[in-house]
Amino acid sequence: MKSINKVVLAYSGGLDTSVIAKWLEDTYQCEVVTFTADLGQGEELEPARRKAEAMGIKEIFIDDLREEFVRDFVFPMFRANTIYEGEYLLGTSIARPLIAKRLVEIANETGADAIAHGATGKGNDQVRFELGAYALKPGIQVIAPWRDWDLNSRESLLAYCEQHNIPVENKQGKKSPYSMDANLLHISYEGGLLESPWNEPEEDMWLWSVSPEEAPNEPTYIELDYRHGDIVAINGEKMSPAQVLAHLNQVGGANGIGRVDIVENRYVGMKARGCYETPGGTIMLKAHRAIESITLDREVAHLKDELMPRYAKLIYNGYWWSPEREMLQQMIDNSQRYVNGKVRLKLYKGNVIVVGRKSKDTLFDESIATFEDDAGAYDQGDAGGFIKLNALRMRIAAKKGRSPLK
Amino acid sequence: MKSINKVVLAYSGGLDTSVIAKWLEDTYQCEVVTFTADLGQGEELEPARRKAEAMGIKEIFIDDLREEFVRDFVFPMFRANTIYEGEYLLGTSIARPLIAKRLVEIANETGADAIAHGATGKGNDQVRFELGAYALKPGIQVIAPWRDWDLNSRESLLAYCEQHNIPVENKQGKKSPYSMDANLLHISYEGGLLESPWNEPEEDMWLWSVSPEEAPNEPTYIELDYRHGDIVAINGEKMSPAQVLAHLNQVGGANGIGRVDIVENRYVGMKARGCYETPGGTIMLKAHRAIESITLDREVAHLKDELMPRYAKLIYNGYWWSPEREMLQQMIDNSQRYVNGKVRLKLYKGNVIVVGRKSKDTLFDESIATFEDDAGAYDQGDAGGFIKLNALRMRIAAKKGRSPLK
Amino acid sequence: MKSINKVVLAYSGGLDTSVIAKWLEDTYQCEVVTFTADLGQGEELEPARRKAEAMGIKEIFIDDLREEFVRDFVFPMFRANTIYEGEYLLGTSIARPLIAKRLVEIANETGADAIAHGATGKGNDQVRFELGAYALKPGIQVIAPWRDWDLNSRESLLAYCEQHNIPVENKQGKKSPYSMDANLLHISYEGGLLESPWNEPEEDMWLWSVSPEEAPNEPTYIELDYRHGDIVAINGEKMSPAQVLAHLNQVGGANGIGRVDIVENRYVGMKARGCYETPGGTIMLKAHRAIESITLDREVAHLKDELMPRYAKLIYNGYWWSPEREMLQQMIDNSQRYVNGKVRLKLYKGNVIVVGRKSKDTLFDESIATFEDDAGAYDQGDAGGFIKLNALRMRIAAKKGRSPLK
Amino acid sequence: MKSINKVVLAYSGGLDTSVIAKWLEDTYQCEVVTFTADLGQGEELEPARRKAEAMGIKEIFIDDLREEFVRDFVFPMFRANTIYEGEYLLGTSIARPLIAKRLVEIANETGADAIAHGATGKGNDQVRFELGAYALKPGIQVIAPWRDWDLNSRESLLAYCEQHNIPVENKQGKKSPYSMDANLLHISYEGGLLESPWNEPEEDMWLWSVSPEEAPNEPTYIELDYRHGDIVAINGEKMSPAQVLAHLNQVGGANGIGRVDIVENRYVGMKARGCYETPGGTIMLKAHRAIESITLDREVAHLKDELMPRYAKLIYNGYWWSPEREMLQQMIDNSQRYVNGKVRLKLYKGNVIVVGRKSKDTLFDESIATFEDDAGAYDQGDAGGFIKLNALRMRIAAKKGRSPLK
Repeated sequence: MKSINKVVLAYSGGLDTSVIAKWLEDTYQCEVVTFTADLGQGEELEPARRKAEAMGIKEIFIDDLREEFVRDFVFPMFRANTIYEGEYLLGTSIARPLIAKRLVEIANETGADAIAHGATGKGNDQVRFELGAYALKPGIQVIAPWRDWDLNSRESLLAYCEQHNIPVENKQGKKSPYSMDANLLHISYEGGLLESPWNEPEEDMWLWSVSPEEAPNEPTYIELDYRHGDIVAINGEKMSPAQVLAHLNQVGGANGIGRVDIVENRYVGMKARGCYETPGGTIMLKAHRAIESITLDREVAHLKDELMPRYAKLIYNGYWWSPEREMLQQMIDNSQRYVNGKVRLKLYKGNVIVVGRKSKDTLFDESIATFEDDAGAYDQGDAGGFIKLNALRMRIAAKKGRSPLK
Repeated sequence: MKSINKVVLAYSGGLDTSVIAKWLEDTYQCEVVTFTADLGQGEELEPARRKAEAMGIKEIFIDDLREEFVRDFVFPMFRANTIYEGEYLLGTSIARPLIAKRLVEIANETGADAIAHGATGKGNDQVRFELGAYALKPGIQVIAPWRDWDLNSRESLLAYCEQHNIPVENKQGKKSPYSMDANLLHISYEGGLLESPWNEPEEDMWLWSVSPEEAPNEPTYIELDYRHGDIVAINGEKMSPAQVLAHLNQVGGANGIGRVDIVENRYVGMKARGCYETPGGTIMLKAHRAIESITLDREVAHLKDELMPRYAKLIYNGYWWSPEREMLQQMIDNSQRYVNGKVRLKLYKGNVIVVGRKSKDTLFDESIATFEDDAGAYDQGDAGGFIKLNALRMRIAAKKGRSPLK
Repeated sequence: MKSINKVVLAYSGGLDTSVIAKWLEDTYQCEVVTFTADLGQGEELEPARRKAEAMGIKEIFIDDLREEFVRDFVFPMFRANTIYEGEYLLGTSIARPLIAKRLVEIANETGADAIAHGATGKGNDQVRFELGAYALKPGIQVIAPWRDWDLNSRESLLAYCEQHNIPVENKQGKKSPYSMDANLLHISYEGGLLESPWNEPEEDMWLWSVSPEEAPNEPTYIELDYRHGDIVAINGEKMSPAQVLAHLNQVGGANGIGRVDIVENRYVGMKARGCYETPGGTIMLKAHRAIESITLDREVAHLKDELMPRYAKLIYNGYWWSPEREMLQQMIDNSQRYVNGKVRLKLYKGNVIVVGRKSKDTLFDESIATFEDDAGAYDQGDAGGFIKLNALRMRIAAKKGRSPLK
Repeated sequence: MKSINKVVLAYSGGLDTSVIAKWLEDTYQCEVVTFTADLGQGEELEPARRKAEAMGIKEIFIDDLREEFVRDFVFPMFRANTIYEGEYLLGTSIARPLIAKRLVEIANETGADAIAHGATGKGNDQVRFELGAYALKPGIQVIAPWRDWDLNSRESLLAYCEQHNIPVENKQGKKSPYSMDANLLHISYEGGLLESPWNEPEEDMWLWSVSPEEAPNEPTYIELDYRHGDIVAINGEKMSPAQVLAHLNQVGGANGIGRVDIVENRYVGMKARGCYETPGGTIMLKAHRAIESITLDREVAHLKDELMPRYAKLIYNGYWWSPEREMLQQMIDNSQRYVNGKVRLKLYKGNVIVVGRKSKDTLFDESIATFEDDAGAYDQGDAGGFIKLNALRMRIAAKKGRSPLK
């Protein structure tokens, strides 16, 4: 077993990570530093502080990372119209590299030689935490108790608590049957009845959005202002990145927007069912494509589209802190120089409908595109030569007997 | 000017192509053969026949191509989850290669040395018709009157009709202000007030779907059966490809599904605004991803996703009959061997919601994915080595001073 | 520790795998089946048989796999012009999936429940053997002694031999300081002084080729006949795949062709220095590009070029038996339909010089390409429109102030 | 016909562009400005000045662009290991955008409204000149006389000269039968007996290099110093970009290095035979890969390799000044941050052999890669989990009956 002096634990304040804190002390005879982040998950952090104190933790870090999260992680990702396997907006994936970074920073600050997390050995999150930590601090030790210990059921965890005097709250009401994760970008659900892909989720599982059925009968119109590919104002009101996302979550959720229910391919090799609510992200994806549609060069847009799945995969698999992600990011960021302007949206019962886009940097040229007289802006005769030369290789092939028409 | 003996004209029976028929005879002193296809555009073809006869056309071809269209063009395209620039389902693009093929076949049959079409010199359709024709019959002559003549307004067309005794119907009601195209996959709208991307379309423009607001307050559930990536039955009832698409258009349109409003990048170099209704296609795209999500290998799915934008671009740009499209198609088709099973959907006011997917060829393995005890199906300890080796190159780089954390 | 009844060992007859055979028996109390393949490595296999018999092995498999190796592995790979990281012709990588397949087949035949190999835990070969085995027989057990045991030096191996009465040959001459691997495609060298990338290899390391300096002063001309992308005859003489490669190795090696000296990126995360001799493969790569240059459509060729690095990486990393490799292979194979014809080469002191290529399936059209009068085969006027429309998007952008010229 | 006031002509001083100068004056009644560039083609430019003066040209621009050419065009391209269709180092392609830029700059300076060039309507160069000009100055007029006039043979050009008093030099010796182009990166040959791809070039065609046969019997060793991916010194001597390339051309040509003989696919749709001498470029490509092999992250290197064919195609097709080329360039340039160090090469009779590479930014870690005891730097046990999880999806598939082994 590794020799550990001090370990920084990603600590939620819940049962699992409380047990882990104790288990780390016992197992490694080491000091434990807790780190709890506000990423917009909508839970108060003070109870986590109190609980850590109650367990005798001496170094307790509690950070509000909401602005950094949206500004440096969520927004850059949306510049690429990122979506994994056609459906998943990467709400959990994009938060992990920030947590990894803070764990490492705190380790550096406190002189810890290890980090620990509460992710299981079957999921993607362990990979995302650990790849990030290794990339940022190559000599760091990583402890993932779920891969090591034998406390593999809720019962054994509770027994451990009793044995070690870890306070367990009296659960009010039932524990959720789902494994959940939340931050400003989304909330996720796994497990329980979702483990069969044929089962429709129960309506009361969803926490962040009303169903389309329950959404208002009147549409909501909003206008988003873009600057370099990021939203900087809503309905004319300037907002910080976290404010933007919080606002869009609110208005999106109220209109039944952003539910996703998929089977996805995990990096560790298995397929898994996941349900997600991403109200603001769903709006952002649609709107960003709209502002790009008038401001981006065609070939730049197509190159972005072709590289996007690879970029999404990097984030999903935990390679945010890799040089290849950084390389793609620079290309993506640079493409956003002229992605400025305004998008008008209609939100209605689950639908995000683009109803207008305009920009002083538009490349849409009405004088050329028009069906009316274009006053010579475009010479239709050019098209003949364009087609003929594009066809030439196929005509030569057909003459040599390769026509697809037999 | 080219010397032409006989020309096959893609003939709709409308004003433009009627003028073209006459203009071809006059200009080239050649025989005109008309070809009118039923691609599911929802118009009767007999009037086109009568009009052609009235103009003295001797060889009149009227074909019902609906099954061939869906079976050999639409379905293969949907196997790739094809979408152009993130939004456009290629409804017009995918019909053009079939028309090009029939034009060439009829030219071969009738001994014609040219084909002609009514597409303008600014659009994509001229490219699609002509690339197809050249690839299939390299010596064919192509006449595109809109690029050549000086009848550039509706007024000059009507004057030409009067001058040459071409019958013009008494228009009942106003002419649509939009340029439209329809087939079983979609109906499209361009021009008019759409020429400003800031304008929201008027509700009465849309012809195939009700608005989400007008759609029923009760959801519709349907089940689709897939075989090798194609839908073969709906709600347990076997259907032909064209029947499938017609049925999905009906049920989709009734539920407010499939409206798209975008600015797209044309192959000829300009941006253009287009609105589309693709009710069945919208359902098919979502459902196909769902059945693939449980039956396709992860890396195969990702490879498909990365190549899709390029495949979509080929179809959009008119390269259906190119060897590179065929090459990609074979790869795509082959990937669908195990894409069998059933998808259950909820359709509601513009939303297509996947609520279940199952397959005897599923790769979803509950025994491994479960949060419960997996009886040893997966060894969590493997994850440590997996992560460590994936991190190795980044750890070495960080040790050499390249950590992204400064 | 796993319980094993019978294990199939990839057995070379050398010291390491002889020790492994004994160690497996001792450690697992299991039966050992040996499998030794002739892949053209140029060693007799009978000594391996005798040695296995001497160790009391009851089931001994010795197979001549040369034709299968070249026909089903080497040739398909060369259809893609495959090269890893711009330099490495994948000589070792491409042999491993065939060995994995035979190990599994023999396991099926003999009722073995495990396979074992002598590859170390640092290299790519362990991955290639094991990914192949798992893909072909998912329940197989894999034993990789180098990852498990403590016999980590030559001394401890020799001590083990003495202890267990394993016959060790009296080494005649010195043992090579390099770790080597050979088959019909190449011979490789690693370790020793090569561990510093600044060291030039010693001339006497190279075994298969003379140096360019030592090669004949007169060039050798050869003609290769291709059918569907594969060489079927040399200098007019029909040959089997293995005969082709053996012949090209001979003539290439005699002319100083095919030495490679690189630092490559291993799948397990480290950089490693390797030297390779691939005389025949070097000739085949150059010649195949030449026959494709006149017979392949431009866009098909470019698509192949763009996908090649990914295909090479799959083979390098051990994913030959994966569905994504199979998917790419089908695309590649299909592209070779018209890759027929003849290539003439000049071999001289390390150089492979293409001096002629011809084909009845050529797409090279002298009547169009000529600088002389082309009798109207090509209308130069078409180029103006071609350029204008290709430029349109950039002209619009420049008008909007985006000209790269400031 | 367009109305033109003043035109900037890319003027070589040769027969063709002299005729063009006169023809432009006659045809458009416009003023002609000549622009002649020294790109290292190895011809004196003063004769071009005198000839332009003799024809009465008033504005004559003669620029030495050698440093700009190598620094801003050749070197950036080599950072990507760029090669078109596996063989062509883009010597002509990369010079055209610089000429286009200078033509536009001179047009801006002199108030010209048009540019003209002497490229034919069948080649790539017209596209490269014109795409560049349109991208940089969207309102520019372009005149390409070879597409417009009827002077389609050498005889008619000479007759035109006599008629218009254009001085024609007394040819000393025979005119070369080849169409040639040269600059610091290469010299090219097309036409003549090369029009048949089965013909071997005559030895006396090649002007820049000796044949491998004629090259010295002793190898030449050189050391190249890299900084951010560019060569900054040779054998320890600092050199400017143009000096580097000139030096490498000299030493490469003297050692028989850099001849290429290919059939390539032109952008305008035909296949064409070309022979090239690129001595310095051939050395640079090999050496750059070598320095990258120890300094570049694996995934960055692979991403570069996958995008390279597309980047090469952009340059070949004339899209240097496009936003997508710029986008890729930024990504490529950024990847070169750590591409520093030294490469040692052996040049011998056509061979470029890497015999050493070292760098203070090396990622090659001997302590990990070694076959000897690595003192725990790498835990071989990690490989088991790495392989198992990478195999998981294939094992699941095989269990479901999808094993490739039937």
